Amino acid sequence: MGDRIFLSDDEFPRQWYNLAADLPGGMLPPLGPDGQPVKPDQLAAIFPQELIEQEMSQERWIDIPEEVRTLLGRWRPSPLHRARSLEAALGTSARIYYKNESLSPAGSHKPNTAVAQAFYNKKAGVKKLTTETGAGQWGSSIAYAASLFGLACKVYMVKSSYEQKPYRKMMMETWGATCVPSPSRDTKAGREILAKDPSCPGSLGIAISEAVEVAVGDSSGGTKYSLGSVLNHVMLHQTVIGLEAKKQLVLAGEGLPDIIVACVGGGSNFAGISFPFAADKIAGAQMEILPVEPESCPSLTKGSFVYDFGDIARMTPLLPMYSLGHSFMPPTMHAGGLRYHGMSPLVSAGVRQGLFSPRAVAQLDCFEAGVLFARTEGIIPAPESTHAIAQVIKEANRASEEGREPVILFGLSGHGLLDLQGYASYFAGELGNFPLPDEAIALSLGCTAEFPKIA
Amino acid sequence: MGDRIFLSDDEFPRQWYNLAADLPGGMLPPLGPDGQPVKPDQLAAIFPQELIEQEMSQERWIDIPEEVRTLLGRWRPSPLHRARSLEAALGTSARIYYKNESLSPAGSHKPNTAVAQAFYNKKAGVKKLTTETGAGQWGSSIAYAASLFGLACKVYMVKSSYEQKPYRKMMMETWGATCVPSPSRDTKAGREILAKDPSCPGSLGIAISEAVEVAVGDSSGGTKYSLGSVLNHVMLHQTVIGLEAKKQLVLAGEGLPDIIVACVGGGSNFAGISFPFAADKIAGAQMEILPVEPESCPSLTKGSFVYDFGDIARMTPLLPMYSLGHSFMPPTMHAGGLRYHGMSPLVSAGVRQGLFSPRAVAQLDCFEAGVLFARTEGIIPAPESTHAIAQVIKEANRASEEGREPVILFGLSGHGLLDLQGYASYFAGELGNFPLPDEAIALSLGCTAEFPKIA
Repeated sequence: MGDRIFLSDDEFPRQWYNLAADLPGGMLPPLGPDGQPVKPDQLAAIFPQELIEQEMSQERWIDIPEEVRTLLGRWRPSPLHRARSLEAALGTSARIYYKNESLSPAGSHKPNTAVAQAFYNKKAGVKKLTTETGAGQWGSSIAYAASLFGLACKVYMVKSSYEQKPYRKMMMETWGATCVPSPSRDTKAGREILAKDPSCPGSLGIAISEAVEVAVGDSSGGTKYSLGSVLNHVMLHQTVIGLEAKKQLVLAGEGLPDIIVACVGGGSNFAGISFPFAADKIAGAQMEILPVEPESCPSLTKGSFVYDFGDIARMTPLLPMYSLGHSFMPPTMHAGGLRYHGMSPLVSAGVRQGLFSPRAVAQLDCFEAGVLFARTEGIIPAPESTHAIAQVIKEANRASEEGREPVILFGLSGHGLLDLQGYASYFAGELGNFPLPDEAIALSLGCTAEFPKIA
Repeated sequence: MGDRIFLSDDEFPRQWYNLAADLPGGMLPPLGPDGQPVKPDQLAAIFPQELIEQEMSQERWIDIPEEVRTLLGRWRPSPLHRARSLEAALGTSARIYYKNESLSPAGSHKPNTAVAQAFYNKKAGVKKLTTETGAGQWGSSIAYAASLFGLACKVYMVKSSYEQKPYRKMMMETWGATCVPSPSRDTKAGREILAKDPSCPGSLGIAISEAVEVAVGDSSGGTKYSLGSVLNHVMLHQTVIGLEAKKQLVLAGEGLPDIIVACVGGGSNFAGISFPFAADKIAGAQMEILPVEPESCPSLTKGSFVYDFGDIARMTPLLPMYSLGHSFMPPTMHAGGLRYHGMSPLVSAGVRQGLFSPRAVAQLDCFEAGVLFARTEGIIPAPESTHAIAQVIKEANRASEEGREPVILFGLSGHGLLDLQGYASYFAGELGNFPLPDEAIALSLGCTAEFPKIA
């Protein structure tokens, strides 16, 4: 016993941590269509007031409503595990811990923010939420949260994923949501695309356009839009992960970790586990904090820090972030949650200011790491989570070679039970790597040439 | 907070509880091919010595090895939840608690015994485990446990399920096991059946025959067979569920529950949560203990208490149990884990002696209950678990009508994330009920006419 470290309910955080309050270099504002910083009322068509306030807040600590705490309490605090079997298999001198977000009803960290977003929308009198989803983790999480608050929910799911991952749609429907393939005939955006290309496989950018259009189009204000990553308030809601982990490491007899590792797509999983520790780093603690992305979608390691749109259809404000260009189409890999051209502005600012040191890993190394993890620690990790595990293995092996005994903390963002086809394809030898030529990135970034430069 | 009740690691049971020690009417022995009680050495070809001893033990408490406790500690003690949202939706005066077994790496209670069985096999020098699986819950659990101990594992999966549920096979392979459709060409039993019917869809009975044949056929003793339900040692290993729940109900401010509900197929989930409480009932406590089965496979409510084989191929000893006859073919319903003609001899004896009061429920009521549970408590239950939920709803509604305020405890045996097709079929209106005509049962039971009678 003792390799799974729990917190009592009393120790569950009462406040979220807002990194924006502590970033030494501050944050650039998002820009509206007029090139000026976005004003709160420009977001009121798609988000309720309290989420807009959180999005723009510079407060360090923001209270978690008791209703949200109670609902998160169904699976939180999540356990912290010492990965002794993985350590033994590696023969490493490192001590490896992982925070297990796979135990939520939807199987990942996403419900941490979905519940909060559904709560604030319900409180504001909203009746229906719209959102987009790629692989389906976010769509199923918001469907789950909407069901708890009696909100209607419509999810636009990228058509290629909709067809490949039927279980995700079934999950959403079991929770009472409607899930349609995007592009759909529901929206002007969808119809225009289908008119040009009836067999269009869809993209996250198109699905965002559809979901936003539906929210904006409801002049009663009864429909709002919900986003599962990238934005500041989403990062905020996920910080319960790191706040819990910090207390659990103390219970485990450790202090601060030496190395923190988490996979990064839009940024919310990485932010969740790392931001509360970033505060210690800002205050002077020695710590390596490593966001890990796929080499096939390397926004942090090969992208540029620019003002760019969050979606291909250019409906969002311009965000100051590392990006591969909003027209970038990542290869179809199995970690669908990491296929995003941009990066959370908060995570981007942290990288820019030297707090975080991004790494990129190859798909085959990830699945190899995922299989080792499944056969030692027992949990089959989501393909996204295997990116963190692959990097952890590199760090642990290096530590052994150099005779160091670091404490490594990583985020297990979710389980892979609905992503098993990826493992099957890996075993069948059907998968490859997708290193991205620099020329392809330069070309893609061309679409941002017209936007304000960031020095 | 406070609706999820945890136990500390210190409170995790150190011993399993053996109901055989306390059954007031005792137990009839299993009979061998010679019609005499089975002797331990007759089981040595398929089970290691320590499991045979547990199978035949009359000791009340049996120590859980520390290695097994450590591995179970990766997800145990499992939480007990107060189902306040379900209570509110029902408007019931009952207080409803559920024990959440969905958080194990394989998603159900099955790993509780899989880990113990793999441990004793490893300790006895066994190199490889064989087993059968229907819907795949047991096969994936033993694959998981085998991987933790470095044992090879071969699973014979009923061919119709193998084709319908590809994710279960992928799970087993990710954990390093081999999973083949049964009937297979690996075994004499499989080849004979395929020679007669090349397109045979398979059955649990055939798969058991294949797995046992492979174990018996390894004269080195390096291969053993593993079973996921029915037998006494399997019931024993599952009692951690009820032992934990008993302590958790005290922490929740309750005493003993008034009503205990669990679904029942071979019996292990029901035994796990109920046996430790059955001890209190034997000692005089007032308690209703309800095993719930599908009306389409009603071994307890419509079967006979007879000596019968555990498999269609008649390879097992004759077991004293409620049975529909070993040739009974249950309709293809979505709760595959409950499609078994017989019933654990321990559970059967408890029913026979009036400890347990079986109930049968209809498939459509189960899915309706499952959807209500998903949309209130948030967890999508396994189709098997929905049988318990359907009965709990009946009990809660009756309590309200009668002005009682009982404490109801039920077992949530697993999540339904790999069974979502059942929910999709339910929503599409494609499912029905399968009440079983008495004549069909009488006919089926004819196959047991030649065996020793039980008064």
